[in-house]
Amino acid sequence: MQRESAERAARVGIVGAGQLARMTLQSAIALGVDVHLLATSPDESAARVCANVSLGAPASYEALAALAEACDAVTFDHELVDVGVLRRLEQAGRCIRPSAETMAVAQNKGLQRARFAALGLPVPAFQPVGTARDLVDFGEREGWPVVAKAQRGGYDGRGVWVLADAATARDLAARAIPAGVELLAEAWVPVDRELAVLIARRPGGDAVTYPLVETVQIEGICRELLAPAPVSGAIEAEARRIGLRIADGIGATGILAVELFLAKGRLLINELAARPHNSGHFSIEGCVTSQFENHLRAVLDWPLGSTALRAPSVATVNLIPGPNGWDPLRHLPEALGVEGVSVHLYQKGFRPGRKLGHVTALGDDPAETRARARRAAELLAGPLPPESHQPSAISHQRGAADA
Amino acid sequence: MQRESAERAARVGIVGAGQLARMTLQSAIALGVDVHLLATSPDESAARVCANVSLGAPASYEALAALAEACDAVTFDHELVDVGVLRRLEQAGRCIRPSAETMAVAQNKGLQRARFAALGLPVPAFQPVGTARDLVDFGEREGWPVVAKAQRGGYDGRGVWVLADAATARDLAARAIPAGVELLAEAWVPVDRELAVLIARRPGGDAVTYPLVETVQIEGICRELLAPAPVSGAIEAEARRIGLRIADGIGATGILAVELFLAKGRLLINELAARPHNSGHFSIEGCVTSQFENHLRAVLDWPLGSTALRAPSVATVNLIPGPNGWDPLRHLPEALGVEGVSVHLYQKGFRPGRKLGHVTALGDDPAETRARARRAAELLAGPLPPESHQPSAISHQRGAADA
Repeated sequence: MQRESAERAARVGIVGAGQLARMTLQSAIALGVDVHLLATSPDESAARVCANVSLGAPASYEALAALAEACDAVTFDHELVDVGVLRRLEQAGRCIRPSAETMAVAQNKGLQRARFAALGLPVPAFQPVGTARDLVDFGEREGWPVVAKAQRGGYDGRGVWVLADAATARDLAARAIPAGVELLAEAWVPVDRELAVLIARRPGGDAVTYPLVETVQIEGICRELLAPAPVSGAIEAEARRIGLRIADGIGATGILAVELFLAKGRLLINELAARPHNSGHFSIEGCVTSQFENHLRAVLDWPLGSTALRAPSVATVNLIPGPNGWDPLRHLPEALGVEGVSVHLYQKGFRPGRKLGHVTALGDDPAETRARARRAAELLAGPLPPESHQPSAISHQRGAADA
Repeated sequence: MQRESAERAARVGIVGAGQLARMTLQSAIALGVDVHLLATSPDESAARVCANVSLGAPASYEALAALAEACDAVTFDHELVDVGVLRRLEQAGRCIRPSAETMAVAQNKGLQRARFAALGLPVPAFQPVGTARDLVDFGEREGWPVVAKAQRGGYDGRGVWVLADAATARDLAARAIPAGVELLAEAWVPVDRELAVLIARRPGGDAVTYPLVETVQIEGICRELLAPAPVSGAIEAEARRIGLRIADGIGATGILAVELFLAKGRLLINELAARPHNSGHFSIEGCVTSQFENHLRAVLDWPLGSTALRAPSVATVNLIPGPNGWDPLRHLPEALGVEGVSVHLYQKGFRPGRKLGHVTALGDDPAETRARARRAAELLAGPLPPESHQPSAISHQRGAADA
């Protein structure tokens, strides 16, 4: 005789309600996992489509405690959380994945660099700098230009400055340091390609790596993903090895995205994100198991799914309208007429320069696949910059100043 | 200078909140389409995961009018609606897709048969029967056994009876006709395989067909989908042609699923559904554009997406626990350990015989792909009936009597 069921669905709380939470929700629906969101506004990308939304600040102990109380595990859409709050929740026995410790590293580029170096992994020369003097000394020692980064809070090219000489360095220091920005100085690297490798890791250490992807960046913002990255098998294997070392080294749980430079045939680690990441969006259609599903599996300590590619070539193009671009909703039907392209819109309000969605194409030939995705993206958001495997190293490290 | 956006997301109302609405919702999230559900309970499969749910009866004019008022188009999770209500909404200028006229056909197997025959399409011999006399006469003329069906309300083998002889026929008629069941008599067909073809059709007539799929049925309930169906190219082409003829003939909008028998090398039409259908679940991972996305595109009169298969072989196994089965939640982690299988749980309460989810595998070899999907399904819901390409013709046409 069958037993009456006493099973209940797994429950995952997500802090933040951007597009990463939105796409995680799609995977949760398939797996029968209940998602509770902590959003700051009901209009946020994921809050618009989720049945269980609480409003509250991501740094609020009370808000996170209520979320953790209702859920089997709490995870994150972004890093803008208070690590002290996360530690208190862990001390209260709550399941925070990734952990407060991992989130502390993910929040801070200075800590990241120190960890990578301690693990013996390849990074550009770097140094946290507290004064204009330190910054100028670094440049004199390592050579100009120098890349200066805000240790916290930067993303999509924000909080990154390329300093041509000592005068520029002093100018930045004079503006940033009194404003409380903790700076990190890095040697400028002549980058041939930017790459990313994603790892999904369970609490006990089981992990899978995704195929290495090229991230085409313009002014520090990822515009396109090309998978598999057009590099040698040895580079791909090395990237996966680096990713796994970092995931183990910082005790990551869930998706860890590691951004890499390929410079003169050598990999250097740029930075990481301890959550699903824009560089993994190709995996939704492109891999057997998407980054979002594997993030949920890892956070719930379930077996991880295959990351194998579903096609020889996968291309993803972000929808970031330029100054002459438009809202992707305006020409959506025309874009859907481009055969073999999957469209993802995030339902974020239109603003030039804002990432409003992405499109993905699968195919046999990398050039044809990329061209197809670009065609749909141009219909959706307006003209794209010319196709290139990589813009100049200077341009891709220059952030949108102070934005 | 860029225009400020005045675009708004498309809005689709769905009558019913079962798993079909749930999976449609996943596609709507990707396309940035707002979905409003009309559910009968907040615990229904789709209502559990949708941000916009109204409670109301699917046959209520007021409930549907409010839904239609809020949406660009109204579509359906099931056929259990009042066609008179739909006609009134159409007369009031509301956008009902598929139309009241199409829904009338979808609701009624007698009307379906009459339409198929009028279109010159191949169907088993049939006759609506109003008396025991009519039913027995049909059997005497066409030969026993006869298949009797309730013209309305039957699904998953319910409302289907195989009548061995005149005595059984009189017995059924004596029970069913006074209870108000309108009966349809059909010649019994020695079925070699059951197949299904899905069409997505826009209001103006543009249409695409999905790859023909074999539907492995037991006691009238679809258990497995095997795509592409192991039949000749000529049969596949004929099935697609039949599907398109029917879609045009009944003016379908959205997905139309046509179930077919292959009997002695010849296709015969069984019945249809004018909505996303269980026989199309393989398309979520298996096709470039899923039936759910193409349903939304069609309902919104947007260009339809490619239906090409993503792999040489796709197998879907429904999760229907038998008397010794269990809730798929119980062993979900183990099932996720079967590599290369996508799990879909509908979050419906456990009950033996209830369709609680499905799993899909893609692969190169049909037998290996099917075995992989079956392995995951057995972990999730318990022992499956032995693998067969098709159970006996009698068994698959026999419904769960009167259930």
